Amino acid sequence: MIVVMNPGATEAEVKKITDKLKSMGYGVHLSTGENRTVIGVIGQRREEAAQAMEAMPEVEKVVFITRPFKLAGREFHPEDTVIKIGDVTIGGPEINIMAGPCAIENEEQLLQAAKAVKDAGARILRAGAFKPRTSPYSFQGLEQQGLEYLNDVRKRTGLLIITEVMDQFTVDQVAECADIIQVGARNMQNYYLLRELGKIRKPVLLKRGLSATIEEWLMAAEYILSGGNYEVILCERGIRTFEPYTRNTLDLSAVPLVKQLSHLPIIVDPSHGTGISGLVPAMSKAALAAGADGLMIEVHPNPQEALSDGPQSLTPEQFKTLVKELKGVALSVGKLI
Amino acid sequence: MIVVMNPGATEAEVKKITDKLKSMGYGVHLSTGENRTVIGVIGQRREEAAQAMEAMPEVEKVVFITRPFKLAGREFHPEDTVIKIGDVTIGGPEINIMAGPCAIENEEQLLQAAKAVKDAGARILRAGAFKPRTSPYSFQGLEQQGLEYLNDVRKRTGLLIITEVMDQFTVDQVAECADIIQVGARNMQNYYLLRELGKIRKPVLLKRGLSATIEEWLMAAEYILSGGNYEVILCERGIRTFEPYTRNTLDLSAVPLVKQLSHLPIIVDPSHGTGISGLVPAMSKAALAAGADGLMIEVHPNPQEALSDGPQSLTPEQFKTLVKELKGVALSVGKLI
Amino acid sequence: MIVVMNPGATEAEVKKITDKLKSMGYGVHLSTGENRTVIGVIGQRREEAAQAMEAMPEVEKVVFITRPFKLAGREFHPEDTVIKIGDVTIGGPEINIMAGPCAIENEEQLLQAAKAVKDAGARILRAGAFKPRTSPYSFQGLEQQGLEYLNDVRKRTGLLIITEVMDQFTVDQVAECADIIQVGARNMQNYYLLRELGKIRKPVLLKRGLSATIEEWLMAAEYILSGGNYEVILCERGIRTFEPYTRNTLDLSAVPLVKQLSHLPIIVDPSHGTGISGLVPAMSKAALAAGADGLMIEVHPNPQEALSDGPQSLTPEQFKTLVKELKGVALSVGKLI
Amino acid sequence: MIVVMNPGATEAEVKKITDKLKSMGYGVHLSTGENRTVIGVIGQRREEAAQAMEAMPEVEKVVFITRPFKLAGREFHPEDTVIKIGDVTIGGPEINIMAGPCAIENEEQLLQAAKAVKDAGARILRAGAFKPRTSPYSFQGLEQQGLEYLNDVRKRTGLLIITEVMDQFTVDQVAECADIIQVGARNMQNYYLLRELGKIRKPVLLKRGLSATIEEWLMAAEYILSGGNYEVILCERGIRTFEPYTRNTLDLSAVPLVKQLSHLPIIVDPSHGTGISGLVPAMSKAALAAGADGLMIEVHPNPQEALSDGPQSLTPEQFKTLVKELKGVALSVGKLI
Repeated sequence: MIVVMNPGATEAEVKKITDKLKSMGYGVHLSTGENRTVIGVIGQRREEAAQAMEAMPEVEKVVFITRPFKLAGREFHPEDTVIKIGDVTIGGPEINIMAGPCAIENEEQLLQAAKAVKDAGARILRAGAFKPRTSPYSFQGLEQQGLEYLNDVRKRTGLLIITEVMDQFTVDQVAECADIIQVGARNMQNYYLLRELGKIRKPVLLKRGLSATIEEWLMAAEYILSGGNYEVILCERGIRTFEPYTRNTLDLSAVPLVKQLSHLPIIVDPSHGTGISGLVPAMSKAALAAGADGLMIEVHPNPQEALSDGPQSLTPEQFKTLVKELKGVALSVGKLI
Repeated sequence: MIVVMNPGATEAEVKKITDKLKSMGYGVHLSTGENRTVIGVIGQRREEAAQAMEAMPEVEKVVFITRPFKLAGREFHPEDTVIKIGDVTIGGPEINIMAGPCAIENEEQLLQAAKAVKDAGARILRAGAFKPRTSPYSFQGLEQQGLEYLNDVRKRTGLLIITEVMDQFTVDQVAECADIIQVGARNMQNYYLLRELGKIRKPVLLKRGLSATIEEWLMAAEYILSGGNYEVILCERGIRTFEPYTRNTLDLSAVPLVKQLSHLPIIVDPSHGTGISGLVPAMSKAALAAGADGLMIEVHPNPQEALSDGPQSLTPEQFKTLVKELKGVALSVGKLI
Repeated sequence: MIVVMNPGATEAEVKKITDKLKSMGYGVHLSTGENRTVIGVIGQRREEAAQAMEAMPEVEKVVFITRPFKLAGREFHPEDTVIKIGDVTIGGPEINIMAGPCAIENEEQLLQAAKAVKDAGARILRAGAFKPRTSPYSFQGLEQQGLEYLNDVRKRTGLLIITEVMDQFTVDQVAECADIIQVGARNMQNYYLLRELGKIRKPVLLKRGLSATIEEWLMAAEYILSGGNYEVILCERGIRTFEPYTRNTLDLSAVPLVKQLSHLPIIVDPSHGTGISGLVPAMSKAALAAGADGLMIEVHPNPQEALSDGPQSLTPEQFKTLVKELKGVALSVGKLI
Repeated sequence: MIVVMNPGATEAEVKKITDKLKSMGYGVHLSTGENRTVIGVIGQRREEAAQAMEAMPEVEKVVFITRPFKLAGREFHPEDTVIKIGDVTIGGPEINIMAGPCAIENEEQLLQAAKAVKDAGARILRAGAFKPRTSPYSFQGLEQQGLEYLNDVRKRTGLLIITEVMDQFTVDQVAECADIIQVGARNMQNYYLLRELGKIRKPVLLKRGLSATIEEWLMAAEYILSGGNYEVILCERGIRTFEPYTRNTLDLSAVPLVKQLSHLPIIVDPSHGTGISGLVPAMSKAALAAGADGLMIEVHPNPQEALSDGPQSLTPEQFKTLVKELKGVALSVGKLI
């Protein structure tokens, strides 16, 4: 961390700041430039120390040198994290596709979707029992009943299940039927939930918040990792920008950037990322070409009857065609579907 | 709601859509323009119906005519909501200032802050016992111990208390010592929490999410109102933009806009809105001039020792001076402090 | 266009508005819903008419049904535009790569860059003689001298040239040495320049503005097309968002979206789009997989000595490796490099 | 400027970088922390040097310590700039209101607007002869004819005139009839225009670009100042965000922030800043309370017939009422209208 003094700071002012830093246990290293004195601060990065410094009237600003994430960062964990669930691996050369309807509506709809997913060659079924919805008047999910349908479909089809958890008190309930537990974008900074997920030993898929920086996203992963659960999968699903045509702006540069900064696997959700089913095939291909470890795609047996997110859902036929086309793209970047 | 058909849609295609709308219980009204057929849909606005329509390949887009918020909207509730807590009123001609430290650090710090707040003439103390923090390594709040300090300070000073609740399971615990319960920006779309707050009978202050549109914010209020709790205070606290100098961009136009769209009181938090204590006085004045019903301001007995948000906290002296200056601004727009 | 009346508008108010619309030459079509009267307006879309309506106190809002772009839109021009320059085609099955240094620094640097570009198999050299720079103290380009170097290199290498024009008065000067004229992001809404480019008969590459919506971008293209120059290539180069790690956020969903809305070719600039050379290979692949017709990539013989944009420039070796890798990706989506 | 080496950089790597910095004429100052070596670089800030450093593979990042603006900054020019035009002063205790129609439509409309502006007590007339419009099919302004009307109205009313210039070649033409020359948001980074304006001796009003950071905005001012024209007035007019209700998001925190960073006067345009005439009064008051030196407000004799921006224009009566109300707000912050 570097502390930049105000222009024209006196020696006494500089001493006041270095004394304070030393009293906080830091080493200091002075550097006097033409217009500013800069203090190199030696010791662990701490937000509290930085804020204390920024609150000093003699200080112009504080600049961090190191990244705030430790366990999520590649610096101290250079090799890729590869997560194994049964015979599926996430984060290695294998591309994984998680597909299914936004919400579980009834047993029949879920089963049809599951068959479509399996038929196309995907191995992980996504479907929501708990649904965060902008309007209190919208369908809010089947909750426990939905989890039971999921459990049943898992047994009947052999598909792995990923489904969303919405608070810390239902983690166990969801973990019973889920192979991967999903944290939605709105909950990326629900720290109680993240801490609870740090205590379990099941993979967690952590969606990027709607307006979360990549650093904040990795810090949310850090909450889970610091609890002792090292199986975190990141999921880019679009950020909020000024562009109104698409529901969100899918930030695919997050894929190679996360790969540089972190060892965790990263997948992409082009369905929420664009909100338009017609854009999903192109953005799925782009995500794989960018280096994503997998995709999460909404598939509904009948998008026009969907209780949620129909406009961004593929039909079973569209999905099957897409999976075929994705194989070539995966191969071209050295991956396998 | 209006359904816009694709250019060149055939009569049969239009019939397919109108039949489907009728089967969903809607009335329809056809309008044929030069390039498009447009279907006016008569009946209650429902997201599900709109999404079903958008998922039809014959449909270009769906446009909503009415606002999604009903109870929060001014259309069916033209008069301002005024909330009474003891002899304080929020939403009327009286300006309310909620002030205090970001986090409760210990009993002494809280008491000093409370005295400073009271001494300056404010009547509501803000202070957090539960703290959502970006880093798992930062100070996370005193939790239950903090609530007890708050309760104690309330008795000793007579100040009203506002403090944050972070999940649905601590609502009762927080409600015991709080006169107003705060929902933080990160929890604006924590629907379980909002529903729980709909069940209690205490005022709720709902902060705008970091990237929430005004419509989404009012829909979050709608969750609380639709549960039967009509005492919701909105709080603008800055939105996320590309500008890096300020922590957030304080959207003061939200104040007159919310006043047009809704009957609920709205206050402004310039401390989080800017992140820089030097900008707080100017933005406090601007907020009142824009028509805000009150302010939420961070005050710390010693910002340079604060465990959280020191750089945006005023000292007791700065706060006292500011309150004095605000009186003239309030008067100039017909309000009283 | 649709005019939505205020809730509770009286018959007389509706008549006032429909009379005004008729006096402006429009047909009208009334539709009375539960809470609102909606007026379908039949006739050409005109911004002036919409603004006049929005300024009426009886009107709640105006909603457009049709897109504002006509010549740029696919509705009246369904087939793809393919631009031929010598034996290069842009917009067809062939992928084109435009590569070279950000700025022309001297003859030697330009020639080395050109050789590297040609050696890797690309056929279009990019290099700027006029440089828009944020700081008046930065290198501003070699201007006319730079154009002469370009002309010379064109003759010596046989590469096609793309270079930027910065105002309407240098269009002819630039057109003399350029095979494609580039309009930079900052000039996307420089309407005098766009109109001048509508008068010439040379392909124009139109970069998306830093905060331009896709609709505004296509309207900028419409300026050129409406002048009679139909050879416009769009270039996505990143938009401004809150994310600080990358210089811009590359919006690859613009590629399939523009392909739906417009018949014009679209290429992608991952160098400016990310600002980080280490992200360029992944994002180049992603752009092709998303369906882009080409790429614009910064290549510098020695990025560490570049006078501009070194951190986002590839070395000749990196570029050569990338072009090889791109061939497979192009093939996987049915294109050829 | 500070150069942060990669974690684990060797002594040889550090030497390579310090040697390069020395060869560029810089002094260096090494600081070795727990995980990183940091090089303090002593000498003038130069973008080129920073980019060269960032392009070195051994370097993690470069951090600037000083601001890039020199002439626009308060550091070397602590006292406020006050601009005098006749008996009007801008930047001192006097609030100036610039009002009038978006576009000059005809002589009669301009004259009526001018009378309304004067009648309300304002002294500066704004009106555009050159109009940058998103669509090529919209009204583009009366150009030279409009300037003549302006000149005529100036003589007849004694009002000062502010009007927009759109390129470097019409600066003289516009300067003939304008007392203040306006640079629109789309031209904030039109560097040829800015340089031309640096050569004249007339006040320039520089609007903030739609997605310009405050630093970029001050750097645009720096272009004009560095040419020798020291009379620059900044104008905040809203930035682009995700919020769709308002046309732009008026960033009022820019007012006190610019006052800290710079000595230049700053005014606010709430008409473009919100796009909604009903929000203009509240935001005008807020702007003054935030410390703005003036306002720019759209007033049209008949907004419903306006050829441009009717929905955000006040009527003469609304404007007159507003000016009265503003006097109290100005007084409450120690200013005068």
